[in-house]
Amino acid sequence: MNSEIITIGDELLIGQVINTNASWMAKALNEAGVDVRQITSVSDTAGEIIRAFKEAEERADLILITGGLGPTHDDITKDVLCEYFHTELVEDEKVLENIKGFFQRKGLELTELNRKQALVPKGCTVIDNPIGTAPGLAFHKNGKLFVAMPGVPYEMKHIMQSFVLPWLKDNYTGNVIIHKTIMTQGIGESFLAAKIEDWVKDLPETIKLAYLPSPGIVRLRLSLKGNNRDSMIRLLDIQVEKLMRLIPEYFWGFDDEKLEAVVGAMLKKQDKTLCTAESCTGGYIAHRITGVPGSSQWFKGSVVAYDNKVKKELLKVSEEVLEKQGAVSQEVVEKMALEACKLLHTDYAISVSGIAGPDGGTPGKPVGTVWIAIAGPGILVSKKFLFGDERDRNIVRAGTAALGFLRSVLLKKNGTG
Amino acid sequence: MNSEIITIGDELLIGQVINTNASWMAKALNEAGVDVRQITSVSDTAGEIIRAFKEAEERADLILITGGLGPTHDDITKDVLCEYFHTELVEDEKVLENIKGFFQRKGLELTELNRKQALVPKGCTVIDNPIGTAPGLAFHKNGKLFVAMPGVPYEMKHIMQSFVLPWLKDNYTGNVIIHKTIMTQGIGESFLAAKIEDWVKDLPETIKLAYLPSPGIVRLRLSLKGNNRDSMIRLLDIQVEKLMRLIPEYFWGFDDEKLEAVVGAMLKKQDKTLCTAESCTGGYIAHRITGVPGSSQWFKGSVVAYDNKVKKELLKVSEEVLEKQGAVSQEVVEKMALEACKLLHTDYAISVSGIAGPDGGTPGKPVGTVWIAIAGPGILVSKKFLFGDERDRNIVRAGTAALGFLRSVLLKKNGTG
Repeated sequence: MNSEIITIGDELLIGQVINTNASWMAKALNEAGVDVRQITSVSDTAGEIIRAFKEAEERADLILITGGLGPTHDDITKDVLCEYFHTELVEDEKVLENIKGFFQRKGLELTELNRKQALVPKGCTVIDNPIGTAPGLAFHKNGKLFVAMPGVPYEMKHIMQSFVLPWLKDNYTGNVIIHKTIMTQGIGESFLAAKIEDWVKDLPETIKLAYLPSPGIVRLRLSLKGNNRDSMIRLLDIQVEKLMRLIPEYFWGFDDEKLEAVVGAMLKKQDKTLCTAESCTGGYIAHRITGVPGSSQWFKGSVVAYDNKVKKELLKVSEEVLEKQGAVSQEVVEKMALEACKLLHTDYAISVSGIAGPDGGTPGKPVGTVWIAIAGPGILVSKKFLFGDERDRNIVRAGTAALGFLRSVLLKKNGTG
Repeated sequence: MNSEIITIGDELLIGQVINTNASWMAKALNEAGVDVRQITSVSDTAGEIIRAFKEAEERADLILITGGLGPTHDDITKDVLCEYFHTELVEDEKVLENIKGFFQRKGLELTELNRKQALVPKGCTVIDNPIGTAPGLAFHKNGKLFVAMPGVPYEMKHIMQSFVLPWLKDNYTGNVIIHKTIMTQGIGESFLAAKIEDWVKDLPETIKLAYLPSPGIVRLRLSLKGNNRDSMIRLLDIQVEKLMRLIPEYFWGFDDEKLEAVVGAMLKKQDKTLCTAESCTGGYIAHRITGVPGSSQWFKGSVVAYDNKVKKELLKVSEEVLEKQGAVSQEVVEKMALEACKLLHTDYAISVSGIAGPDGGTPGKPVGTVWIAIAGPGILVSKKFLFGDERDRNIVRAGTAALGFLRSVLLKKNGTG
């Protein structure tokens, strides 16, 4: 079964909004065994939307549409759907009740604009949206299914989960696509490729390999299509095991795993706690860590010592070291890590000090220079990194490098690395 | 002039990667006065790529392509370009020199795979990529321009800035599109729409209005197309001024401004400093703030008091208050803010304590309950918010609400609000 995704909205075509909906939907479809053949973004213009509908209908069996169902005048998708499916808007009582309830629960008054959201194309299947005001709208045509959903991400997700994915389960049993992604850190794409060259050559033809680099991380995705899920999983597992033996120092997880969650699971298993002392990363590492549900079990907190005075007073870095070595130095990050452990009563600490840019670089310490230390029971290690020119990217790379560094320390500590 | 963007890569169609390239390119084109008619994502399959090229060529004058130029076997865009433009791959000496230099500078060995990146389609214009190993490739055909760029975001951006945008400036003078986006915070989309209803009715027909909601923020985008930039800007400015008078308490900035940068500029102007004391936001607010270049001038640091022990020891929250009121309470956030000011020697502090979820909710304090306080010279204010069920979203909304809260305090302090 083929599907296509059409995302509607001028904001996408002028680059004001990043299309996170399309990737979320693509992933959900893919997991359900449905190929996504194309993702198309078009403007809030009737002619363009209708053209996109027609083209997608020619190629795909399932067409998912988001955007343009809101209450304001720039939302025209419902009108266009009426034109495309030769129908008209009528008020839907159930939808109106839902909208009334939605506003009542929030203690807000129902506006005339919101009442308009109870208008739906006659004859379509109306899909309940209890967390918003615009319902989903499904249309069957010549064995093909069109589903229009609101562009608000969590409302779209709700309709996908309550309607589209169950529908696929009931109505579609065909080929299965399975993927396994191997997460690596600390090695560049081409060096990784050189390291696993022979393994790639021996890979069964049915397995497709892709390299996906992102700041500090390279993902290797293996994909396989077929109709026997169990034997496919076995086939993939054999290859994954071979691959992991080639890159034990770089491999850290699978699929959607996050490095911070992997590190957290290791800490939890070893019954240890963590804190961070951050200068140039400014709380980014603590933010990534606290994004992990349940992280309060092993993460205690952070001192963001952006100002040198905070480094001196809370983390006891001496004036002398700051003057002689500078804030971006081995001595400073080591002291920060040691003191953070004491101050926040943790077993381990990550500390970071660097020059994120755009300013602050010198010939000896250019923008992108970052020192990272890890302190732990009987351990104090530090490393200097040289990232690039971009502030945002440097912060992300420093965070990933710091978490990877802690992981390697925990592995050694546990005697498994 | 019409353009289209084609992004190539299986990772987009299985939802593994979010298409940030497309939005960046769309924005750059738009600012150059070029309409983006469609954004299309297709897989790393020759047939699909060629179909996408053909369709885009029919509709657009400029076709920008990213992805599939990397060194590994899954990158097939160069071969497909050869097929489409009836040419073949040849080694380019200048590209080879660049690749050699690139690896030498990094102290890395040149692999055979990387040498392959010096192969380019014969007859195309090769665009220098000094920050990576895959050059850009431009093809002219019947007055239309195709440009293929690497999928690595910062390499794509470099080629856009060094080649595509200058080419547009030299070769294209047509209609101009201008946008002005009004940023609001603290009011929902439909309530905002009701508030500005009359203004919308009186808006000149040539000006297009769009509502763009994101967690905690609604953006209003005004767009106008024409050929006289100055008179267009004047026309927009008149409308923007009228609009701002209707929503002074919600309006906080324009276009790409970030709330944290706006707050920072206010602090800098008032010569005041800031710190944060964060529990449920776990460093997210400090991270947003330190994303602003130059923030070290007014931001001193943060205490991420994830564990109650840190709240007690560093921020002097009493055991008694924690037991009686709970960590998510007015008393706790107020104490956190007051003590953070003292500990980090700042004029202002933002403090946050809440239940981000998924666990930790109670009937009295459900997931999404967040207390925020602002302490400042002679000021201590706090507010309770009730967000939703999603952890990530709650963290983002709490951050935006906290920054908006500080902004309103700073406005009043300055006597302008």
